[in-house]
Amino acid sequence: MTTDSPLQIGMVGLGRMGANLVRRLMRDGHRCVVNDIGRDAVQALAQEGATAAFSLKELAAALEPPRNVWLMVPAGAVESTLDELVPLLDADDIVVDGGNSFYRDDIARAGRLAPHGIHYVDCGTSGGVWGLDRGYCLMIGGDEKAVTRLAPVFRTIAPGTGSAEPTPGRTRAGGTAPEGYLHCGPSGAGHFVKMVHNGVEYGMMAAIAEGLSIIRHADAGLSGRTVDAETAPLRDPDAYRYEIDVAEVAEVWRRGSVVGSWLVDLAADALARSPGLDAFTGRVSDSGEGRWTVQAAIDESVPAPVIGAALNQRYASRGLDEFTGKVLSAMRSEFGGHDEKKE
Amino acid sequence: MTTDSPLQIGMVGLGRMGANLVRRLMRDGHRCVVNDIGRDAVQALAQEGATAAFSLKELAAALEPPRNVWLMVPAGAVESTLDELVPLLDADDIVVDGGNSFYRDDIARAGRLAPHGIHYVDCGTSGGVWGLDRGYCLMIGGDEKAVTRLAPVFRTIAPGTGSAEPTPGRTRAGGTAPEGYLHCGPSGAGHFVKMVHNGVEYGMMAAIAEGLSIIRHADAGLSGRTVDAETAPLRDPDAYRYEIDVAEVAEVWRRGSVVGSWLVDLAADALARSPGLDAFTGRVSDSGEGRWTVQAAIDESVPAPVIGAALNQRYASRGLDEFTGKVLSAMRSEFGGHDEKKE
Amino acid sequence: MTTDSPLQIGMVGLGRMGANLVRRLMRDGHRCVVNDIGRDAVQALAQEGATAAFSLKELAAALEPPRNVWLMVPAGAVESTLDELVPLLDADDIVVDGGNSFYRDDIARAGRLAPHGIHYVDCGTSGGVWGLDRGYCLMIGGDEKAVTRLAPVFRTIAPGTGSAEPTPGRTRAGGTAPEGYLHCGPSGAGHFVKMVHNGVEYGMMAAIAEGLSIIRHADAGLSGRTVDAETAPLRDPDAYRYEIDVAEVAEVWRRGSVVGSWLVDLAADALARSPGLDAFTGRVSDSGEGRWTVQAAIDESVPAPVIGAALNQRYASRGLDEFTGKVLSAMRSEFGGHDEKKE
Amino acid sequence: MTTDSPLQIGMVGLGRMGANLVRRLMRDGHRCVVNDIGRDAVQALAQEGATAAFSLKELAAALEPPRNVWLMVPAGAVESTLDELVPLLDADDIVVDGGNSFYRDDIARAGRLAPHGIHYVDCGTSGGVWGLDRGYCLMIGGDEKAVTRLAPVFRTIAPGTGSAEPTPGRTRAGGTAPEGYLHCGPSGAGHFVKMVHNGVEYGMMAAIAEGLSIIRHADAGLSGRTVDAETAPLRDPDAYRYEIDVAEVAEVWRRGSVVGSWLVDLAADALARSPGLDAFTGRVSDSGEGRWTVQAAIDESVPAPVIGAALNQRYASRGLDEFTGKVLSAMRSEFGGHDEKKE
Repeated sequence: MTTDSPLQIGMVGLGRMGANLVRRLMRDGHRCVVNDIGRDAVQALAQEGATAAFSLKELAAALEPPRNVWLMVPAGAVESTLDELVPLLDADDIVVDGGNSFYRDDIARAGRLAPHGIHYVDCGTSGGVWGLDRGYCLMIGGDEKAVTRLAPVFRTIAPGTGSAEPTPGRTRAGGTAPEGYLHCGPSGAGHFVKMVHNGVEYGMMAAIAEGLSIIRHADAGLSGRTVDAETAPLRDPDAYRYEIDVAEVAEVWRRGSVVGSWLVDLAADALARSPGLDAFTGRVSDSGEGRWTVQAAIDESVPAPVIGAALNQRYASRGLDEFTGKVLSAMRSEFGGHDEKKE
Repeated sequence: MTTDSPLQIGMVGLGRMGANLVRRLMRDGHRCVVNDIGRDAVQALAQEGATAAFSLKELAAALEPPRNVWLMVPAGAVESTLDELVPLLDADDIVVDGGNSFYRDDIARAGRLAPHGIHYVDCGTSGGVWGLDRGYCLMIGGDEKAVTRLAPVFRTIAPGTGSAEPTPGRTRAGGTAPEGYLHCGPSGAGHFVKMVHNGVEYGMMAAIAEGLSIIRHADAGLSGRTVDAETAPLRDPDAYRYEIDVAEVAEVWRRGSVVGSWLVDLAADALARSPGLDAFTGRVSDSGEGRWTVQAAIDESVPAPVIGAALNQRYASRGLDEFTGKVLSAMRSEFGGHDEKKE
Repeated sequence: MTTDSPLQIGMVGLGRMGANLVRRLMRDGHRCVVNDIGRDAVQALAQEGATAAFSLKELAAALEPPRNVWLMVPAGAVESTLDELVPLLDADDIVVDGGNSFYRDDIARAGRLAPHGIHYVDCGTSGGVWGLDRGYCLMIGGDEKAVTRLAPVFRTIAPGTGSAEPTPGRTRAGGTAPEGYLHCGPSGAGHFVKMVHNGVEYGMMAAIAEGLSIIRHADAGLSGRTVDAETAPLRDPDAYRYEIDVAEVAEVWRRGSVVGSWLVDLAADALARSPGLDAFTGRVSDSGEGRWTVQAAIDESVPAPVIGAALNQRYASRGLDEFTGKVLSAMRSEFGGHDEKKE
Repeated sequence: MTTDSPLQIGMVGLGRMGANLVRRLMRDGHRCVVNDIGRDAVQALAQEGATAAFSLKELAAALEPPRNVWLMVPAGAVESTLDELVPLLDADDIVVDGGNSFYRDDIARAGRLAPHGIHYVDCGTSGGVWGLDRGYCLMIGGDEKAVTRLAPVFRTIAPGTGSAEPTPGRTRAGGTAPEGYLHCGPSGAGHFVKMVHNGVEYGMMAAIAEGLSIIRHADAGLSGRTVDAETAPLRDPDAYRYEIDVAEVAEVWRRGSVVGSWLVDLAADALARSPGLDAFTGRVSDSGEGRWTVQAAIDESVPAPVIGAALNQRYASRGLDEFTGKVLSAMRSEFGGHDEKKE
């Protein structure tokens, strides 16, 4: 990581992501003013070298104009933060929303800030808890001028070219994508690409999880499945007598296979720690981007059966298919006199 | 129901389906010899006019050659029944398998009986507990000669032309389909078509159940959904403030709508009895045909995303997606530090 | 059809649906004032007994207050029709939108008309080109007073109780659902239920179409499938040697089967006219309600894998999966050196 | 790559995979006897240092007992190769099937070779055309003794521990998975795990391809979509006015993102070479493992909606949904008088 011209940047929101962004920025010579609703979080980073700001007012005062402010707050808190922050800013200041906002909100917010001459930059930030060391993949929307001014910051936060082999077929000179950040287009484009990134993530995760589950249940022929009119018998139990070490399968797939990926790395790690994943119940949350991706695909008339199935799978994992199942069992009872199996 | 030439037929298996077939046959003048592993079931039908046979041997003896034997036993019991029955039969006898056998077993069984001159007819029988009065839809496979000989029986069991309006565009003279039974092809063809029928049934049921569930949850904007980083907020709660009577929706769809169907009739009935379907948990069984339909589609390279989704939905309703969900939650925990929500 | 108190009603939009609604209303004694952008359509119905109105102004003038106006225009034309119509109306008049508007537009429009004292009723109308004789299933939203005033009209348009057997388990006294119309809730509720109805329709249609396709391709073992590294061989060709008459299968399913439905009736009719359906290419349109249903399910967090798959299937049938396929083939080429098969 | 004890191994089948395996083995000091139906392929590798065998007889003669023979032939050719090869072998010889055989065939073949004292090892080999340098991920089934004897060969072929970071949570001492090869279980277990690997690959590829397609069509609001009763209008065209460089998105996802993976690397490479992927039509082949994975999931009662959707997507991309689409259009025409749109 090396930066031609260090910048001063104000970070609002010092949760795991925000705090690590500050650390990564300071390591590379940028000066950070930090703010959070929790005083402790502010003080902790102040001890690491940041300038403390216990209010947005203090933050605005501590930043030299033209200011660069990065919001790393929950999507639901962006609007109220802007309400308080915008009056403290001046023309030519930049506000970056680095969280997981819905891209349509970016369009509206950029439009709202434009009359004040304030630039609004939406920045999808991927990398999770590992980003401090690995760097974060940045997908950016907004006007060219603002994005260019922040280039040193993006370059620091992103993983850099050394983090992956060069793409053999790439002949294009220039472009920042090989460094790990990309100006995707006007306002909203960054969060749009990040939204779809998360949709892809849902699908990839689901593929891996289903595959490992199929391997885990390769022993289906060993347990006697109940034979009654309500349960289909396993026709070829001899073909399902494997007791395969799922954790080791995830580990071996990390090297040389076509499915090699960071997600397989993570699955291997989780299974190495706990082969039965006993700490988990299997109720899988979703935090918005997957839904929005499917809804965008529908609007665009682009088939997305796999990402859609992954989303439905998460819903069902949380029992949200209950009434549907009741209607199905009720119809079966009506036409066939089938009693619902209780277990 | 009217039959030119009544036949004598032996019924093996007097469960709900078998007993009602016998009743429907006797009503129309056919003579029935009945057998079951339960003596009570045999005696009950004997009191209604059937000839009792307390063993397959008695059954074979009571039938005048060439015999017509109809098996209405669980799919898993067909093989052993044939083992005992076949030595008691003679050339030109017919065995009908009226249950839900896998069609590939029919091919094997027909091949096994052929050297003895015994005809094997596979007959998919749809109609459930209502068939006694409504009649049963029959999908038949086997050799032409045997199917023709049994025509009076099929005609009695099937609903008959009066049970639905004539198809306006139908110009073909003849054919038994309008009577409610069809010789679909050689051995296995009957159960093949019945198998796919059940696959279609899965998909139709799922569409209805999902739709009613979407209507039931049209009140999603009334309950405050928890707002945290793990749960996507509902963006437009005002658009989901309906409390719609799902039972009445099912009832109104029964008349004049495009989705009008026997399955909607049954859903309306179940919801009329219990709007919350409280007697059901939502764990939906599957009894083989849906699985086989999807596997056949795969073999044939025919896309069947809807029937496949309906099958997976039933599996998931029984919690069989648990390990998949654990892997998903574990990956989320790894990359995002997301704790799994416990409820 | 019998009506206690005939009403006067203005119909705007005399396409197939609108014209047939007028005919059905007049048959039952209601007086109709008719308007359309096409003079011919107006004159045709005037000759059948309706009062001609060649403008909305004429229509408003010809209706006795309080007026009842029914819009049967494309969803995209409702807004401009209202712009012109509303100034011609008075307090206590009722406007019914009988088309396929998005339910959220109903909420907005009802809110816009309310200050004028004009009632806005949204009415989802199912029945297609057959409704003139069969009657139409009506799903209605709006305020109680307006819906009650229009009851004689709804009663005439709907199929009536005689159009289906009574639901055996129904004990509730009253309710209009058995007549074929239902007041589902406040503004938007009618089109919401109609929207989901169409989503259910997508899923049911898909299940039937997939099933018939699986049956049609039961001959997969007869044609030799190319054997190369890019094409999976059929492992059991002997299990797929059936040449089944798909048209007759659809016909036989009409009687006594679990999948019996109006949609199967229609499939049987189409196949009776043309077993190969040669007039069709297989590019399936979608007109909005299916998309909105899936998007609503996502908002509500209700899994709808089957309806979602049916929607994606329609998109893909129109070639909208092309870029997705290109990316897949490109990846295969990259990792395996697989050439894309050209046919 | 370093190997304690070099082995002698016979390679049958010198296509891209087989030839590269030989090269990788020879680089690491193993001695190879090579055979192929094409003489040129044999001679080419002989010039690189292998021992030429122009028949299986020559191959068997050139190998010192106990022999190690590796088959790298199309799945359809394994059976006939074994027919010719087995009589040339002796007790304690090992045959490895390194291709993409169906795992159930392995079980049968191992059973067939066992009476001769010949060991049968099934080895799923992933890595494609890049494996010569990257190494191959090996998933192995068969008896312990044979697998142990071949360990030096597997160690050479696999990528080795250095090819990925160690899994942080891994505490288990030993195990070969971190080296890139794994003995998964008895006969068939190797190809079972490889089969599922490919199923996972289908799902991951589909997720990436769908996501990139959604991004490519983020300009849907720029082109005017036809507005008629058959086409749903785009409600919010302003939200879809992005022209995003899909190739650069794939490139940026390679670094620091959650979806980082070899498949994204390959997609980025393909898009760098040709942003429109114009050399491809979007007809995506499938070569068996994806089908078998879904069928295994069904047998095991494990929901696999995502992998199943990916398989159906490939089928549909090749136009195999045509009859389904025709039935759908025919039903729409029947109930709504909808003409099918021709383009």
